[in-house]
Amino acid sequence: MSAVPTDLDAYLTTHDARIQRELFELLRIPSVSARSEHDADTARAAEWVAQSLRDAGLEASVHPTAGHPVVVGEWRGAGPSAPTVLVYGHYDVQPAEPLELWTSPAFEPTVRDGKLFARGSVDDKGQLFLHVKALEAHLKARGKLPVNVIVLAEGEEEVGSEHLAAFIEANAARLQADAVIISDSAMFAPGLPSILSSLRGLAYFQIDVQGPAQDLHSGSYGGAVVNPAMALARILATLHDAHGRIAIPGFYDTVREWPASVRQQMKTLPFDEEHFRAEAGSPALGGENGYTVLEQLWTRPTCEVNGLLSGYTGEGAKTVLPAKAMAKVSCRLVPDQDPAAIEALMKAHVARVAPKGVAVTVTHLHGGRPWRAELAGPLFDAARRALAAAFGTEPVITGEGGSIPVVGDFQRILGAPVLLVGFGLPGENAHAPDEWMSMENFTTGMRAIAMLWDELGTNGVRRT
Amino acid sequence: MSAVPTDLDAYLTTHDARIQRELFELLRIPSVSARSEHDADTARAAEWVAQSLRDAGLEASVHPTAGHPVVVGEWRGAGPSAPTVLVYGHYDVQPAEPLELWTSPAFEPTVRDGKLFARGSVDDKGQLFLHVKALEAHLKARGKLPVNVIVLAEGEEEVGSEHLAAFIEANAARLQADAVIISDSAMFAPGLPSILSSLRGLAYFQIDVQGPAQDLHSGSYGGAVVNPAMALARILATLHDAHGRIAIPGFYDTVREWPASVRQQMKTLPFDEEHFRAEAGSPALGGENGYTVLEQLWTRPTCEVNGLLSGYTGEGAKTVLPAKAMAKVSCRLVPDQDPAAIEALMKAHVARVAPKGVAVTVTHLHGGRPWRAELAGPLFDAARRALAAAFGTEPVITGEGGSIPVVGDFQRILGAPVLLVGFGLPGENAHAPDEWMSMENFTTGMRAIAMLWDELGTNGVRRT
Repeated sequence: MSAVPTDLDAYLTTHDARIQRELFELLRIPSVSARSEHDADTARAAEWVAQSLRDAGLEASVHPTAGHPVVVGEWRGAGPSAPTVLVYGHYDVQPAEPLELWTSPAFEPTVRDGKLFARGSVDDKGQLFLHVKALEAHLKARGKLPVNVIVLAEGEEEVGSEHLAAFIEANAARLQADAVIISDSAMFAPGLPSILSSLRGLAYFQIDVQGPAQDLHSGSYGGAVVNPAMALARILATLHDAHGRIAIPGFYDTVREWPASVRQQMKTLPFDEEHFRAEAGSPALGGENGYTVLEQLWTRPTCEVNGLLSGYTGEGAKTVLPAKAMAKVSCRLVPDQDPAAIEALMKAHVARVAPKGVAVTVTHLHGGRPWRAELAGPLFDAARRALAAAFGTEPVITGEGGSIPVVGDFQRILGAPVLLVGFGLPGENAHAPDEWMSMENFTTGMRAIAMLWDELGTNGVRRT
Repeated sequence: MSAVPTDLDAYLTTHDARIQRELFELLRIPSVSARSEHDADTARAAEWVAQSLRDAGLEASVHPTAGHPVVVGEWRGAGPSAPTVLVYGHYDVQPAEPLELWTSPAFEPTVRDGKLFARGSVDDKGQLFLHVKALEAHLKARGKLPVNVIVLAEGEEEVGSEHLAAFIEANAARLQADAVIISDSAMFAPGLPSILSSLRGLAYFQIDVQGPAQDLHSGSYGGAVVNPAMALARILATLHDAHGRIAIPGFYDTVREWPASVRQQMKTLPFDEEHFRAEAGSPALGGENGYTVLEQLWTRPTCEVNGLLSGYTGEGAKTVLPAKAMAKVSCRLVPDQDPAAIEALMKAHVARVAPKGVAVTVTHLHGGRPWRAELAGPLFDAARRALAAAFGTEPVITGEGGSIPVVGDFQRILGAPVLLVGFGLPGENAHAPDEWMSMENFTTGMRAIAMLWDELGTNGVRRT
């Protein structure tokens, strides 16, 4: 097992304090892509990332889209005969609410017990930034990289990457690459570097139920006017059967089974369901009967309520018959489920089960395709060696319950294989209060990525 | 048919502008009993009502309770041999939210098309105030009333009159009365004065479902961790069967059937279900199969969702698996259902149907007993004559879907018959945005009540 090259390691060690200071600066920008009141912050984060790329030695530009801007960094110094590798990350973050559940403010980075707490620390600013600094180490310590590099940072990952596919398509020639590297996922356990074999897709809906024209007195109207909140509950209750299986007709028709060998490998991973339950703080685990937790998370689709709102939700009692009720409902998808097909099934199902007396609208807010990797070839081998060198142990192959919709787009538009190698950890609270990233993983991950460039240069990933 | 005595009518006509000005003053006080931030306003409204009673010629005092204060006005000038009649009303109001749906501000009384728009205009400040002014007419125009009078105004009607029963019990000797009059209901139709034969009771619950210890990433945990919002929906969906009948075991065991004659009389009332539907703005009516709308509203219990809250409810999409979900659920009750018994049935039912993997708590926020009137005797006859005189037409006997929990308390503690005669109108938006009271009903109702005192003096309501 080779070690991380000393010149790169020395550079990153020497500049450790500045790197952390810069990371904190980025994390202080509340670039919440879902909230229009943060549009200026999101734009500021894009400019910040572009400047950071320039400081690292790349050329960088900020490209407006119909949504939030895309940042492109480029270093083409390896010449036209060398391979080109594209690094993707995102500078936008999830909303930080509920703010009162954060131990320290969401946008004031704070280190406690080796954990860096901040919205975006691990998802994905911290992981994007360690790539920028790994590139900087090469370009500052050696003045060059062994391959050409493109960095693509978007600002709409947390709202479905709505405009990214169009951007990649419109700039396909410029973005042409032999491989794509993404760090927006987690290691399976501390000290256990991980390469991802799959991602779930997403189909995210809002269900709006309109009852009476306005809120009514529940005494004067209750019993005759159909209650939209009760109607919504009855609709949501039809989404699963008694065995935790999704009851939307046709929902599982395109689910591809996993090879027995992969299911077997999953069972060998060091995973304690009771520890997972305790870490989630859940009274008991549930879900679809007949599957282990890792199978449920990595290989099976879901249908979840993400939000509910209707009527009076304040202190005390108000005897109101609400005019309307709303649910946010999202399905995690697995290969080969298609978000558009799931949208059609969901809409047909809700229309079929919706009670009389209310008007029900299902809106598809966004979707992303599921993905499964090919676990072979020079890109995979280079990553395996770099991770082993930096972390001192062979990486494991894992699945991922979350979604990175753009992965499918890269593969489809650029035709390049995608490597997913992330440095988060279980319990990192991505999308929740007290999101954190391990400082050790940031530091070691940055060195693993620095080494990865050497491996890519040595072994080549040029597509034939 | 006798007319309203001319001296009382003349007094009220002369002072019309001042009476309206004073009413507006009362309506401007945002005495929202459900919200602790309005405690000072609620206290101010109590003092205002007490002063108004004093100005009318009664003695008045404000009595603190563990909640909001009770106002007592008294005029004992008819002497110990004359009957005593107690008038009850409430000076607290429902929350005004959602504020953006009010055409004019909730606490800025505004007259449009003969309707007085303001929170509390009809429920119940306007109706309480017309009683105060009817008493003032007698005491100012004649210097006396034919019977002794007690006015009891509370500030917790909209939150379940929690401390009123204890207050009445503690002051039973002082509050001893031969009859109780309450105006906190509506006429069946414009121009059709109405005497109420029944009220529904209430059992109001909050259901809290706790899943994981905090909000989780729906990708990283979804499929294995039980979703509390989905669990809540599944619980709520068990509350009714497919025929709109409440499916809580034992729920109907104590429902007393109505006499066939009363059900028959209900069918003769001028009621258009399509008009009711259109006025509610509901796409179609629903509820328990096999009953007319008036039967559903007046004679059958309900189980309604009044509010829902869980997870992310803002703009756009957030892929969160919520830590908790909350529903406000209330049951309207009919004789002889008992709120405490319904609480026990609800708690047992929810415990039985709650999914594994979540912790479910059912809290009984407040309750009130249903009530049915005796439609005979001198009190009923006096009301019938006074209403006929003021409105120029015989009153009808109607039911009421709403709840006035204190009615049962008066009958139980004071042993006095209760007369419910109200001057609201269908569509008055009580508990909703744009609550209004008909100015004509205010004016004519005030005169009917002024005349009622003469009728009570002439015919007597002294209990034997």
